[in-house]
Amino acid sequence: MQKTTIRAGSNIAFIKYWGVADAAINLPLSNSISMTLDNAHTTTTVEWVERGLERDEIILDGKRLENAAAARLTDHLDRLRAVAGADYRARVMSVNNFPMASGIASSASGFAALTVAGVRALGLELDATRLSALARRGSGSASRSLFAGFVEWERGADDATSIARQLYPPAHWDLRDVVVVVSSAPKHVSSAGGHTLAATSPLNQGRVTSAEAGLSQVRAAIRTRDIDRLGPVIEQDALAMHSVMMTSTPSLLYWQPGTLEVLQAVRAWREFDRLPAYFTIDAGPNVHLICEADTVTPLLERLSALACVKRTIVSGPGPAPYAVDEHLF
Amino acid sequence: MQKTTIRAGSNIAFIKYWGVADAAINLPLSNSISMTLDNAHTTTTVEWVERGLERDEIILDGKRLENAAAARLTDHLDRLRAVAGADYRARVMSVNNFPMASGIASSASGFAALTVAGVRALGLELDATRLSALARRGSGSASRSLFAGFVEWERGADDATSIARQLYPPAHWDLRDVVVVVSSAPKHVSSAGGHTLAATSPLNQGRVTSAEAGLSQVRAAIRTRDIDRLGPVIEQDALAMHSVMMTSTPSLLYWQPGTLEVLQAVRAWREFDRLPAYFTIDAGPNVHLICEADTVTPLLERLSALACVKRTIVSGPGPAPYAVDEHLF
Repeated sequence: MQKTTIRAGSNIAFIKYWGVADAAINLPLSNSISMTLDNAHTTTTVEWVERGLERDEIILDGKRLENAAAARLTDHLDRLRAVAGADYRARVMSVNNFPMASGIASSASGFAALTVAGVRALGLELDATRLSALARRGSGSASRSLFAGFVEWERGADDATSIARQLYPPAHWDLRDVVVVVSSAPKHVSSAGGHTLAATSPLNQGRVTSAEAGLSQVRAAIRTRDIDRLGPVIEQDALAMHSVMMTSTPSLLYWQPGTLEVLQAVRAWREFDRLPAYFTIDAGPNVHLICEADTVTPLLERLSALACVKRTIVSGPGPAPYAVDEHLF
Repeated sequence: MQKTTIRAGSNIAFIKYWGVADAAINLPLSNSISMTLDNAHTTTTVEWVERGLERDEIILDGKRLENAAAARLTDHLDRLRAVAGADYRARVMSVNNFPMASGIASSASGFAALTVAGVRALGLELDATRLSALARRGSGSASRSLFAGFVEWERGADDATSIARQLYPPAHWDLRDVVVVVSSAPKHVSSAGGHTLAATSPLNQGRVTSAEAGLSQVRAAIRTRDIDRLGPVIEQDALAMHSVMMTSTPSLLYWQPGTLEVLQAVRAWREFDRLPAYFTIDAGPNVHLICEADTVTPLLERLSALACVKRTIVSGPGPAPYAVDEHLF
């Protein structure tokens, strides 16, 4: 068995994944569409050991995970062991090139990289579709990070059919995701826990029912590279997801004052300065601004004048997971 | 005909009115429940003039309303004229004891006071139910300000049946509404305009469908004077209303950074300091904190430490509209 190191990009969803039809396998309530990110990635080295290790050793961003903190990853390593029919222990080291709590989904890139590295280190050859289904079990949005560029995750009906596929390669559209970090306060509820709460919101069914229209608009907007068609749809979907979160029991209110400062600012810049940038928000307070490449400079200039902005991270459409020659250990 | 001066309290809704089944008569999509406020009121003097006036003269907070600005009030004066079968012109002067854009519904107290003053000045005797239906035509929430204390506006089926009634008098429960003014920026869209947008939100039907459960919870919480039962329901309903607003087309995003600062703070004070205060938010950025009388002092103390708080206005349950001896002109 070979030590294997894989780098996988995170992704930003234009139509979000929120809520599960089957929590045991992360079967979502509806399809979602995302862009894989080229500048927000996780690099993971996996080495399987036949003997001499009592348990998996997992080091994430320099910190060894123990017990409960390690459980979500060891559970995923169990899935990979099951595919190989093997009983090895794993040494795993993983680093993100972006800070935790930055509003970038580290579980998406993390489970994509762990899945591909773990499978290859076992000497198995699985296609991207199979890897997507496996990664989904670790974290739903990781299923999308198996593919480059613009990606749709099909809801599917079961473990085998709930898989992502590429809509368009990165070169199709030079889009940007400008993450605006407004707060580094840790989340009270992880996204994984929140998904099971969606069904408690009186607004959840309305969001699920309307998802098909949003998906179809987003597909068309990406196909025609039309930012002003894409933007209003992704804003509405992000607001609808947060509506479901806020009105679930318990209520999840991820937004902070800085969130609203950025939302109001970007709408004002659009209205008064004709700056074509649109927001989306994942399960946290930070804001992702989506725009075309030539909007990035004037956008960053304006953002630098907002007191709430701690940092920005700019990504374009990124590649599928790829092997890196230098191992982390 | 007598010059008549009436003072009417505004009200704060615990289950909100948002969206119309029939915009022409402000027939709502569902019932709503509110508390009439004792410290946020409009005082209005009406004098009908048989001849010598070409058009109604309306002065609001010292400013004469002309043309479009006056239209909503002259339309309402037309309704009063129709009841009396008269063709008089009116002199109207009206003052609020709270600032505009304070997050207090000046249209609720304003149309309640105008209706009662106008009808009495015409020499008509209408009961509160009839006055409630009339006031509703001016502004939906004004229908509730016809009654003291805790009030429910029945959706009804038509103009005659869509009326409010008292649930409990003010002495039933010594509740407080602490308005937290965080921004005085004028609204982009008036509430009256926004009501017609509710139907464009994919989340509207879910809110309407779930309203019955919320109403029943709020009735029970008021009956048993249980703030910790009332609180979570009013927070969810306010968040659901803003969810509908945010996801309508166009999107109405009333919140400002200070809104979120107060929402997050009040939830933290509950969780860590066991301070039983709950928020609700009308169509604007300011926050209403609902608590029992003995919570007001510790609440105001904590609010004074928040940078975003511009002013606070504290009200208890207030009376029905009443005659004031001193006329405004």
